[in-house]
Amino acid sequence: MGASARNVLFIMADQLRWDHLSCAGHPHLRTPNLDALAARGTRFTEAYVQSGICGPSRMSYYTGRYVSSHGATHNRVPLSVGEVTLGWHLREAGRTLALAGKTHMLPDARGMRRLALDGQHDLKALLDEGWFTLVDRHDGHHAEPDSAYADYLRAQGYDSADPWTDYVISVTDDQGEVRSGWKMRNARFPARVREEHSETAYTTDHAIRFMEQQGDRPWVLHLSYVKPHWPYIAPAPYHAMYGPGQCLPVQRAEEERGPDAHPILRAFQDEEVAQSFQKDEAVATIRPAYQGLIAQLDDHLGRVWSAMERLGRWDDTLVIMCSDHGDYLGDHWLGEKELFHDVVQRVPMILYDPAPEARRGAVEDRFVEAVDIVPTILDALGLPAAPHVVEGRSLLPLLRGERTPWRDAVFSELDWTFRGARRRLGLPTGHHHAWMVRTDRWKYVHWTSGIPPMLHDLHADPQEFSDLGRHPAHEDIRAEMRERLLAWFTGLKRRTTLTWDEAEFRTDRHKAAGVFYGEW
Amino acid sequence: MGASARNVLFIMADQLRWDHLSCAGHPHLRTPNLDALAARGTRFTEAYVQSGICGPSRMSYYTGRYVSSHGATHNRVPLSVGEVTLGWHLREAGRTLALAGKTHMLPDARGMRRLALDGQHDLKALLDEGWFTLVDRHDGHHAEPDSAYADYLRAQGYDSADPWTDYVISVTDDQGEVRSGWKMRNARFPARVREEHSETAYTTDHAIRFMEQQGDRPWVLHLSYVKPHWPYIAPAPYHAMYGPGQCLPVQRAEEERGPDAHPILRAFQDEEVAQSFQKDEAVATIRPAYQGLIAQLDDHLGRVWSAMERLGRWDDTLVIMCSDHGDYLGDHWLGEKELFHDVVQRVPMILYDPAPEARRGAVEDRFVEAVDIVPTILDALGLPAAPHVVEGRSLLPLLRGERTPWRDAVFSELDWTFRGARRRLGLPTGHHHAWMVRTDRWKYVHWTSGIPPMLHDLHADPQEFSDLGRHPAHEDIRAEMRERLLAWFTGLKRRTTLTWDEAEFRTDRHKAAGVFYGEW
Repeated sequence: MGASARNVLFIMADQLRWDHLSCAGHPHLRTPNLDALAARGTRFTEAYVQSGICGPSRMSYYTGRYVSSHGATHNRVPLSVGEVTLGWHLREAGRTLALAGKTHMLPDARGMRRLALDGQHDLKALLDEGWFTLVDRHDGHHAEPDSAYADYLRAQGYDSADPWTDYVISVTDDQGEVRSGWKMRNARFPARVREEHSETAYTTDHAIRFMEQQGDRPWVLHLSYVKPHWPYIAPAPYHAMYGPGQCLPVQRAEEERGPDAHPILRAFQDEEVAQSFQKDEAVATIRPAYQGLIAQLDDHLGRVWSAMERLGRWDDTLVIMCSDHGDYLGDHWLGEKELFHDVVQRVPMILYDPAPEARRGAVEDRFVEAVDIVPTILDALGLPAAPHVVEGRSLLPLLRGERTPWRDAVFSELDWTFRGARRRLGLPTGHHHAWMVRTDRWKYVHWTSGIPPMLHDLHADPQEFSDLGRHPAHEDIRAEMRERLLAWFTGLKRRTTLTWDEAEFRTDRHKAAGVFYGEW
Repeated sequence: MGASARNVLFIMADQLRWDHLSCAGHPHLRTPNLDALAARGTRFTEAYVQSGICGPSRMSYYTGRYVSSHGATHNRVPLSVGEVTLGWHLREAGRTLALAGKTHMLPDARGMRRLALDGQHDLKALLDEGWFTLVDRHDGHHAEPDSAYADYLRAQGYDSADPWTDYVISVTDDQGEVRSGWKMRNARFPARVREEHSETAYTTDHAIRFMEQQGDRPWVLHLSYVKPHWPYIAPAPYHAMYGPGQCLPVQRAEEERGPDAHPILRAFQDEEVAQSFQKDEAVATIRPAYQGLIAQLDDHLGRVWSAMERLGRWDDTLVIMCSDHGDYLGDHWLGEKELFHDVVQRVPMILYDPAPEARRGAVEDRFVEAVDIVPTILDALGLPAAPHVVEGRSLLPLLRGERTPWRDAVFSELDWTFRGARRRLGLPTGHHHAWMVRTDRWKYVHWTSGIPPMLHDLHADPQEFSDLGRHPAHEDIRAEMRERLLAWFTGLKRRTTLTWDEAEFRTDRHKAAGVFYGEW
């Protein structure tokens, strides 16, 4: 399309469901700043991630490649040192990818040892971060007593060796007792950390300071929040902003846990987090806190928007707002994420393009995927598209309302080797994967390890209660979905060490290289 | 299985067809030393490569991974710096993989630059060679005037800046004129190089010297010949050892080049090498020379066997003899290789296992693949199997005649982006691939880029003349083959940065890591 922006603000929330925005139709939750971004740009109603769990989903966002291509199939599976990330694409063009917040990036320690890259040097620091340059990294979700955030909290007077555990995810109950936010029952109480020192505030502070310090130097910033991901502990006043009656009703049906339910669905319903969320009290406790965390996030995005206004950045900055996946919150008798229901796989996605030709307040229902973000950023900055490695497509044409041939299905994947469900089904360690094909009407999930498929008719059953995966009448649909999956596999980018221009140059060129085979 | 060998001699011929061994039934060609190896061990009658062209086939031999996994899809497509080779597996165990001859390995220059590995250091030398340690590398097939082999030839008195071009692949015709071996018509004349200085002799000399010098120190050697690959120039007396009447008859049918022939088949028949081989005179000229080169190779293998006898190496050495692919030699109106007929995809494969329980003189018809070689070597040496990355299976159980569940299909791939055929079909650079599924009865080839499939009934049509790929009556077979291909894709190893033991250790382990989500 050609360059349209000097800067990129690539915002990600963690575990934010697509339906928890007021502009997406939530009847009670108010997200005025997300709504304002949607009014400035395009909101994608059918945006899907490449995996319903943080690590692999983020590696797809950061590489523009499907999970089967980048290989970081689950949390804490390192991204191979052979994979190319957005940070490297930018660096090749003399640009830098800055980070404030979370990435879930894990160094490929074995690969780096093989390549003798495990010593102390500047390159190792970049490789450890997947070519992000840190403004501040804060991955959240577990104690990091030696982190910059812990130091910051101590400097604010939170006197603890582990202030995250003792203040950020601890609460004071109505008896004045300190309780751990790891216990979901305590999500009704406020965090012991003051709102302005919370994770969301802290990461926002870093981002705004970064934008200020850059002045007129161009930048690309990943502003990556750890919320509303668990522990579901919100600081006051957000912990009490919503009540159970202001939450979406839980979506679950008896047939989903009956004797004919899919074995994987049942096995995941036996995970501890699912058992907890099967309690009505848990849903009634967690959903309001989750909404409070989103409202807080939205308020801090308002601070970001104001800073951009003050700095003139709405004129020259591409803004992307998305999430790495959703959260069951008790739907389908499940907690957490990983499986393939829309509440996990479908995410908020709002893009603002400063180009004059971009649409404003547009609502776009064509399918988009996490892998589209890297090519969109490269396109907006006028950088080479790298089609030999990038598997997504630039969204700029959609932001401008252009008619262009487009995909009619999205794909997501799961490596469930690491889950207790795998052991409970009697399967050894190794290779246990699943792939989702989702079209407008059908959602098909293909499993290895002898597990039968899942199939949902989303027109007849938008809540995804009825699994037709073993229903004889739908074998033709399943066969069609398998054909789509095969076509998708054949389209993955494997030849990543040569560009397409190089392939063109080398075509039929043996004689120029001094090789004259075939002459009679 | 447990260790059975201290040493491994991994021999590869280049472009040697499965049917050009006397033990495989060739009626005229004599290969007594290959036959002797078969008598000592197991000859696999159904051995297939992962790609019908040198580079990708070899990278599958050297990684134990399919082409879609290792990504080096064509000649001179670098193997990603993220891929793990046999040389590294051995090095992790304190062993070394030595090379005498050809690998077709090309450094991943872009990846190494990204990782700042492009300077001058010992590691770069290893990475450039894919973790082979050179005894002597000689890739053949093109002039290398600065190579060790060129220096060797000059030291023997071949006075030339480029003795390979001027002597090894040049001939003296019956008028006493010097002519180039690049012209296939000249294959009837003897090479200007003396037999004992030819490529096959030179590489054998290096291998024998290496074995001698190792003494009783254990070793793994890849003895990798560049012959009988083109230029088809044999030194005397081998150039005249066979006549056209002692060659296999050319296998081609009119329907293969008729108007209903497959568009890819026809496009490849328009390549210059195919046009040349369509001349009866070319077949009658090249096939005898090709057989001469094989007879020469066999004689030098006799030298290797004698050296092993003298050194006592038959007691403690696993021997593998294979080829990277075959050669059309005019069959199917084609020259060279790349497409999926058995004369290209099926290769000689003979293994000798020194273990007492191994079978002697066995003929094994279960399907084996190039990816099986790495796991066989690791198994024979008693080293970890690395199932998180290796996709083949150890052949030791088959060498010992064990009943074990085994595969019933083999898979091969082609990236034809680099071929003139792609341009002649009007397709742009990019992503043009094909996959073969071969069972006992069926051979199915799946193409991208809107190209129709190919299908052969090998029971009814063992010569592969009749393409049923668009025949309405066989849609059920094609659908079954696509299901097999999909199952194969889902089984590829993507999560290569963690071992399976690590995956087991990490399963359901979040609480041990200090993460207590899901507790009510």
